[in-house]
Amino acid sequence: MKTPEGNSLLTPETSSGDVRAKSFSFTISKKMDGLGRAGLIRTPHGDIQTPAFVVVGTKANVKGITSDMVRDLGAQVVLANTYHLYLQPGDNIVAQAGGFPRMMNWDGPSMTDSGGFQVFSLGEAFGTGVSKVASGEDIVVSERKGYDKTNKNAFIDEDGVTFKSYINGDQHRFTPERSMEIQWNLGADMIFAFDECTSPLADHDYQKEAMDRTHRWAERSLKRHQELDPKNIQALFGVVQGGRFQDLREESARTLAAMDFDGFGIGGSFNKDDMAQAVGWVNSILPEEKPRHMLGIGEPADVFAGVENGCDLFDCVSPTRVARHGRIYTADGYINLQNGGFKQDFTPLDPECDCYTCQNYTRAYVHHLLRAGEMLGQTLGSIHNLRFMVRLVDDIRQSIYDGNFQEFKKEFLGRYY
Amino acid sequence: MKTPEGNSLLTPETSSGDVRAKSFSFTISKKMDGLGRAGLIRTPHGDIQTPAFVVVGTKANVKGITSDMVRDLGAQVVLANTYHLYLQPGDNIVAQAGGFPRMMNWDGPSMTDSGGFQVFSLGEAFGTGVSKVASGEDIVVSERKGYDKTNKNAFIDEDGVTFKSYINGDQHRFTPERSMEIQWNLGADMIFAFDECTSPLADHDYQKEAMDRTHRWAERSLKRHQELDPKNIQALFGVVQGGRFQDLREESARTLAAMDFDGFGIGGSFNKDDMAQAVGWVNSILPEEKPRHMLGIGEPADVFAGVENGCDLFDCVSPTRVARHGRIYTADGYINLQNGGFKQDFTPLDPECDCYTCQNYTRAYVHHLLRAGEMLGQTLGSIHNLRFMVRLVDDIRQSIYDGNFQEFKKEFLGRYY
Repeated sequence: MKTPEGNSLLTPETSSGDVRAKSFSFTISKKMDGLGRAGLIRTPHGDIQTPAFVVVGTKANVKGITSDMVRDLGAQVVLANTYHLYLQPGDNIVAQAGGFPRMMNWDGPSMTDSGGFQVFSLGEAFGTGVSKVASGEDIVVSERKGYDKTNKNAFIDEDGVTFKSYINGDQHRFTPERSMEIQWNLGADMIFAFDECTSPLADHDYQKEAMDRTHRWAERSLKRHQELDPKNIQALFGVVQGGRFQDLREESARTLAAMDFDGFGIGGSFNKDDMAQAVGWVNSILPEEKPRHMLGIGEPADVFAGVENGCDLFDCVSPTRVARHGRIYTADGYINLQNGGFKQDFTPLDPECDCYTCQNYTRAYVHHLLRAGEMLGQTLGSIHNLRFMVRLVDDIRQSIYDGNFQEFKKEFLGRYY
Repeated sequence: MKTPEGNSLLTPETSSGDVRAKSFSFTISKKMDGLGRAGLIRTPHGDIQTPAFVVVGTKANVKGITSDMVRDLGAQVVLANTYHLYLQPGDNIVAQAGGFPRMMNWDGPSMTDSGGFQVFSLGEAFGTGVSKVASGEDIVVSERKGYDKTNKNAFIDEDGVTFKSYINGDQHRFTPERSMEIQWNLGADMIFAFDECTSPLADHDYQKEAMDRTHRWAERSLKRHQELDPKNIQALFGVVQGGRFQDLREESARTLAAMDFDGFGIGGSFNKDDMAQAVGWVNSILPEEKPRHMLGIGEPADVFAGVENGCDLFDCVSPTRVARHGRIYTADGYINLQNGGFKQDFTPLDPECDCYTCQNYTRAYVHHLLRAGEMLGQTLGSIHNLRFMVRLVDDIRQSIYDGNFQEFKKEFLGRYY
């Protein structure tokens, strides 16, 4: 029988000693020319070899996949969404369950985001089809079909954000303090300061205003975190914003670098073509000895660009989201398994893949399941796409150790795109 | 890479020797007072300890569950639906994949039904809410919502059945010969003669007419089977019909017993209260030395009644179908995990269960997933309910060996209902 115990965050006073000193650390093992590096993050629930792909388990589950499968596909760390778990089942319920990782039977390292991204997606971006990335090949799959697309559902003021629940329209409010409290209850090893994720369409004036507010929220997040968690059981990452503008990105990096964060997220909006450059501006300023998480970004080209420019962690819902619609990553680019051409294709999804799906099932089978509306098709596609991304970042890391990152990048992207 | 080979039924001439003699057999190991027995079915893909619960993999997958999970929960044999696989992806595709078990990565014993049940559900029963069972506690969950409920979609004549595809309305036709050909392509170890499954509301005259036709179809099925499969690689079961009427059930059992079938299905409609009696009429006549499959029946009380009256195999979609709606079997009867009362229940789904779900997750977690519309909730619930039924029939079998079936039945049903 499962009972809330161990890492339950309802009773932090039961922890003994300086957990932080033992548990959270980051060390760089190998540097590339420029900003890139490979290293190791230690957490109370195990180590993360970096660079690493972080698997997203939005509502305390990776959609359609058990945590054993997540482990088996090589994932090192799972990230859940503060906004979603706050609304459902509620962070108090999650705390009673011993935190979201325990609730979902994930015993490895874990993260929660700040809720700031939902401020963007429910507010400025709501119903517009605008993604975090202003242009490029990213597909935007709306999961909010049927909602009134003319209304914003989040409103920002200096103190915080008021928003409507996407579930029942109830009004809720997040502040930096509330985000820290919720993330404390959710119980991840790594958490993020509350931030405002802006639209890539916002102008310099608005980006500046939002960034300054995010910096004030960062201070407030730190303060509340230190009150809640004086032993720093949870590592707190500050989130760099500033949109597409060099002056703002650099100012944001400088400002946050001066605060006592354990690591940093690079959040907000980019122009796809300038993303690498923007990340480079930021990581040239952030302290080298702390880990950097590129938030919500994860197409293969983006990951190469992020690593090359000094990022250590990447999370993205794309692998599972597109898999549910039949888009499958292969070494030669993606295929859409819903296409009739796969009906009699008895080869694996990706002939070079070592995932559970590719070892045991064919394109024809997963095509059949997807066309028949069988959820197992979504599960098998998601396992494959996640394994593909996890392995890609593993291979990138190995190429750093082997000193052939550029060759690997050229070879991989040349085939993929 | 998977290629169609091995048990591919496109090239039966590649088989050598008398596969049947080596592969399909049934032996009784222990008899109860009356008709009940425990035994062993041997198939080309492994043994089945009987009585056994047969897991249903309608469209060549158990909904939401990988075949490894099906194995891990103790299932001995999987049954797929001829009607569904004929329409999607098509039996020729399945044959190219090496048969449905290979397609779905199931290497154990397998069965397909005849398609006759769909004649009933698309014809007489279409849109009426009438189940195979005329009364009792069975819940009927329509999966055909949105269809015009005033039209039948199947029409029976002496030669066969014409029906409309539920997918696109196209017209199709099954005959006994066609059913054998399709089941040959689907490649199961055990298959069923084509039959007409009548409504429990049909009168004696119609039941007699349908039963006589089913007997003529049984002869034609046998003949076509022997042409397709002279070495009898597939074991063919005849299906006893006759509705609720003793004279018809007995006549059907006598008629089919005289034909050269490898086993028997007991199909069609019953009054819930009389089911045990009707099965007893049939099994008193069927040859003792051949296995008997009670088709599409599988609530706990039904399984006890079936075993006690001489049935060896049971299949039912209920465990997974009701799990997807949150109904979870426990030793103390079923619970509905969607109910708000489970929001903070951090105990396993069934505290006495040894399934993967109960070992690793709580009621509160699966409640959360179901309420959040996360398909993993359906998967975890289905794993539990299937394990519950598989283990129940395993325990019934053990009670036969231990000589305490009646005690076990009384104890189990006393708690469950």
